[in-house]
Amino acid sequence: MFKKILIANRGEIALRVIRTCKEMGIKTVAVYSTADKDSLHVRFADEAVCIGKAASSDSYLNIPHIMAAAEITNADGIHPGYGFLAENARFAEICGEHNIKFIGPTPDQIRSMGDKITAKETMIKAGVPVVPGGEGLLESLEEAQTLAKEVGYPVILKATAGGGGKGMRVVWNEGEMEKNYNTAKAEAGAAFKNDGIYMEKFVEEPRHIEIQVAGDRYGKVCHLSERDCSIQRRHQKLVEESPSPFMTPELRKRMGEAAIKAASAIGYESVGTIEFLVDKHRNFYFMEMNTRIQVEHCVTEEVTNFDLIKEQIKIAQGEAISGLNYEPQMHAIECRINAEDPYNDFRPSPGKITTLHQPGGHGIRIDSHVYAGYVIPPYYDSMIAKIIAVARTREEAINTMSRALSEYVIEGVKTTIPFHQQLMKNDDFIKGNFNTKFLETFKMV
Amino acid sequence: MFKKILIANRGEIALRVIRTCKEMGIKTVAVYSTADKDSLHVRFADEAVCIGKAASSDSYLNIPHIMAAAEITNADGIHPGYGFLAENARFAEICGEHNIKFIGPTPDQIRSMGDKITAKETMIKAGVPVVPGGEGLLESLEEAQTLAKEVGYPVILKATAGGGGKGMRVVWNEGEMEKNYNTAKAEAGAAFKNDGIYMEKFVEEPRHIEIQVAGDRYGKVCHLSERDCSIQRRHQKLVEESPSPFMTPELRKRMGEAAIKAASAIGYESVGTIEFLVDKHRNFYFMEMNTRIQVEHCVTEEVTNFDLIKEQIKIAQGEAISGLNYEPQMHAIECRINAEDPYNDFRPSPGKITTLHQPGGHGIRIDSHVYAGYVIPPYYDSMIAKIIAVARTREEAINTMSRALSEYVIEGVKTTIPFHQQLMKNDDFIKGNFNTKFLETFKMV
Repeated sequence: MFKKILIANRGEIALRVIRTCKEMGIKTVAVYSTADKDSLHVRFADEAVCIGKAASSDSYLNIPHIMAAAEITNADGIHPGYGFLAENARFAEICGEHNIKFIGPTPDQIRSMGDKITAKETMIKAGVPVVPGGEGLLESLEEAQTLAKEVGYPVILKATAGGGGKGMRVVWNEGEMEKNYNTAKAEAGAAFKNDGIYMEKFVEEPRHIEIQVAGDRYGKVCHLSERDCSIQRRHQKLVEESPSPFMTPELRKRMGEAAIKAASAIGYESVGTIEFLVDKHRNFYFMEMNTRIQVEHCVTEEVTNFDLIKEQIKIAQGEAISGLNYEPQMHAIECRINAEDPYNDFRPSPGKITTLHQPGGHGIRIDSHVYAGYVIPPYYDSMIAKIIAVARTREEAINTMSRALSEYVIEGVKTTIPFHQQLMKNDDFIKGNFNTKFLETFKMV
Repeated sequence: MFKKILIANRGEIALRVIRTCKEMGIKTVAVYSTADKDSLHVRFADEAVCIGKAASSDSYLNIPHIMAAAEITNADGIHPGYGFLAENARFAEICGEHNIKFIGPTPDQIRSMGDKITAKETMIKAGVPVVPGGEGLLESLEEAQTLAKEVGYPVILKATAGGGGKGMRVVWNEGEMEKNYNTAKAEAGAAFKNDGIYMEKFVEEPRHIEIQVAGDRYGKVCHLSERDCSIQRRHQKLVEESPSPFMTPELRKRMGEAAIKAASAIGYESVGTIEFLVDKHRNFYFMEMNTRIQVEHCVTEEVTNFDLIKEQIKIAQGEAISGLNYEPQMHAIECRINAEDPYNDFRPSPGKITTLHQPGGHGIRIDSHVYAGYVIPPYYDSMIAKIIAVARTREEAINTMSRALSEYVIEGVKTTIPFHQQLMKNDDFIKGNFNTKFLETFKMV
């Protein structure tokens, strides 16, 4: 059993871990950069150690400083949170070398999912669907035509040196292949001085739907249903919910089984997430596995009533998982409140919070490390709070979220609250009619 | 369907009702006394009307002013909250006379439970157990002896003019009756110039356990399990929880059935609560029915996931109740945060809140109408917040509450937070080993 856990992180996730540790009777050590000395995670931990200057490389990514803090405080566990060192296999290894338990999977498990090509190969072997496509560059139009038949239309041609949509072409049927093949190659050559292109199945109207899993060292793996994280801006999730409005019991069963296969394939022992793309026909494809707790774990906690940090700590202590299961009955939505200006391309808005009034009442949970008078430093990510609404139905959860957002007062900095307020009133969002492209056309009014 | 509801109340319950109305798309009207003009319920309502000076008799009990506010704002419903006019049958009647729906039971239902003698008679007829005892004063020692045999020892003799324990004697067996009968009579005569005494069954180690019920106008009544409210100080509840640590499935079944009988006996149509005393042998006795929403309704909401204010409004709209049921799987505890000094006999501590930081995170709900800079007026009850912890087990709920209380910062006034912190660490409380006498011997350290 852990006696003292050092949290190698900052902000709301550091506070989140401290809360569960307190409830489990485990002492906590906060580490902080000079920029974070007034953060709540420092105040609420039993001990706190300054590990360096504001820049992450000097502090939250500074492994020697973090290990020194763990040694001088006699911590017997390190929780990495998310981001920073959470998926750094070498850090997990170093913890082990110091006889301090890394609260997460083994270094090998992290590595096997950290390398995307290895991960994809492992998934194919395990029978988990991945986005189909060729294994290398296309040599000729004929090869493209043959491969497209195998993969099935629509397909997408992508420049191997690509980015920004250049050299990228969706091909809907065989008749369109020749023209698109030539255009893509020409565009790629012009843009990148490299006309190499490859092919993948085109995922139509993709949704980002992920499955929360948990595994223990005895080989048991289970899943706790899905989260829909399709509301993204430049691959940054802004809103997450569980269950997904796009889900069916049959699809959940298939995706759950695939997620268990994926985690089992690497003998996964911790909580983790298998991220899938789901197309409009409800085909799903493995994207990646996050071998750590995620920002959006709270929506799963709210619908399942499990404390995922507690489960993670118990697994790290060597306990067998038991009783973890869930049949969706509630609906939870999380909005990420960032110090960003949604009227100005979500530009970061660090600075001092002069007034803070957080909503409360039925169905509302808030995870936040800020307070009135807190100065948001410009060095880290701009998330200052997560607000989660839970209710019996999706419609009610949206209404509860709307109500709570209308009570939320943060003055001194710009926040994404107005964005979330408008999203909660958006017809397509309300109908569950959205995919990962949704925010590309969403306009603030 | 309601279009606009006036909330004839203040403080957290006014805000609580406003929140649900917002979520249901119903407009709200706040009423307020001059002392409450800066209260959140005024800020968050769609409209607000000042109804008089600080004294309740000038404002929150001022029926003509409240009805005028409802008329000028065109409200089609009035929610009374708890306290003030919530169990005033005449007020409910006046609402009806103005064609404004009183959101609660009918005037007759309120009256039938408001008169305690009538209520007891109704319960006896309905087959609901009440505390057994004689119907009037004891005429002689012999009558006392005969009655005690019927009722069963132990019994308690009480002075009809009594109070403060004078003329009150517990009699454990027949051998003790003569002496106690004489002492009680003599004491009563000396203390009150009236030596009339009567007899009741003595409820040993009584717990206050109540059953949440809901009934509709179509005669359907259901219950949503119990709340244990035994942690009381001078009949003021301080902590409530659901389920009761003293409960058994068998007792819950019997008490639930009795509660449904009680509410059905008066054709009850709204949400309400049947309060019982439960002795150490798990005999239970009807105390009274609260024909309104209660302060502690939140613990039931947290374990059942029903919004009881929403259910109350739907019933008032004429909807049939459906799906309301619950088998306990979660555990919720509520602590009332009062502006009172627990180190000084819980003396009220009104004044300005200079600093406020509310806890959050998993398992924590806060219902509160205060904010940093808010001035708690001295005119009303001293409750400034309710904090509710919910978890899978009672032990976890206590730990979550302890953790959250340790984060709670309220400066400028004294609060009951230290009391709750100590209670959560108390061995007997943790073991569930308490009854309504518990706080008589509890000492702050």
